[in-house]
Amino acid sequence: MSQSLLENLIEQLQCLPGVGPKTAQRMAFHLLQRKRQAGKELSVVLNEAMDNIGQCSECRNYTELELCGICQNAKRAIDGTLCIVESASDLAAVEQSAQFSGRYFVLHGCLSPIDGVGPSEIGLFQLEQMLENGHVSEVILALNPSVEGEATSHYIADICKSHNISITRIAHGIPVGGELEMVDSSTITHALMGRKQF
Amino acid sequence: MSQSLLENLIEQLQCLPGVGPKTAQRMAFHLLQRKRQAGKELSVVLNEAMDNIGQCSECRNYTELELCGICQNAKRAIDGTLCIVESASDLAAVEQSAQFSGRYFVLHGCLSPIDGVGPSEIGLFQLEQMLENGHVSEVILALNPSVEGEATSHYIADICKSHNISITRIAHGIPVGGELEMVDSSTITHALMGRKQF
Ligand SMILES: [Zn+2]
Ligand SMILES: [Zn+2]
Repeated sequence: MSQSLLENLIEQLQCLPGVGPKTAQRMAFHLLQRKRQAGKELSVVLNEAMDNIGQCSECRNYTELELCGICQNAKRAIDGTLCIVESASDLAAVEQSAQFSGRYFVLHGCLSPIDGVGPSEIGLFQLEQMLENGHVSEVILALNPSVEGEATSHYIADICKSHNISITRIAHGIPVGGELEMVDSSTITHALMGRKQF
Repeated sequence: MSQSLLENLIEQLQCLPGVGPKTAQRMAFHLLQRKRQAGKELSVVLNEAMDNIGQCSECRNYTELELCGICQNAKRAIDGTLCIVESASDLAAVEQSAQFSGRYFVLHGCLSPIDGVGPSEIGLFQLEQMLENGHVSEVILALNPSVEGEATSHYIADICKSHNISITRIAHGIPVGGELEMVDSSTITHALMGRKQF
């Protein structure tokens, strides 16, 4: 017997991260029972998003426009700071803190020669052009403290130095509200190295 | 500023059960980064499923056809048993056990006069017609042991008796592999009441 439409739906829902057969089945029944209109609306926006969302020509953040909302906002350029993140979800996390009023640059990865990811794959030549324009006074590195993150941070630091742009990195340490005994040793190492006068 | 396509996608993904803003954001980025084609295929099947999946005219199981795969299978009618379940997901659970070779009838709910759910809302007149046809020798109740489930079970038992059809119910008790101390007291009550000679 060929696959039914319901079986097909349950299979396709598993392209979503963290969704296995059981969860996909629960989702399919939920939509069929109570959310058919919402399911149809999701179908439309999903198709539009997959077709039309590309990268902002300035910062490489996801957007369906030539320039993302942040790059369109002139106030954010005046700030002069540029926060460099590995992913669009990292950008969203910084943005949700509402503490940063400059612009971003999204690498969509890290330098990883073994995997064939060099400077051009993560937009570093585009970044260099941006820094040459002279509108950036400070680059803030917000990359993960992994081996690849460190190598990428050093590469970007070298670009900044050659353009006389100040470079900082966000602090790594114990999360606020986090218990010391629950934190991994790599975080504790960073917290110790980043200690400040009391 | 109006909502971006990405924000719209993240909002619409939250029509899925168990998906809040954080999970929806993770899903959206995952699809954009790595699964655009799968996202588009999901969009197509989602729209088709919402439009075309209805209820089987015999058993009320979800299907895009007039008769579902189980009702189309003549071997399953020969068996003579009819398993009555509250939902299509309960049907799927019984089916996955591969222990039942008869047909099903899906109520899509339980009798609940307070909520305006009477016999016709859960297909009981259709069920009675099915029993009058004379092809069912045994009705197996697989409803949940809730107040509504019990009331519905008794209602169906009365129909069966008036048509001289044998009626049984599946056993409730301690799940196989389940630890006694982890099981809720209602299940223990059912397990005690259903005890058998050792
Ligand atoms: Zn941008
Ligand atoms: Zn059927």
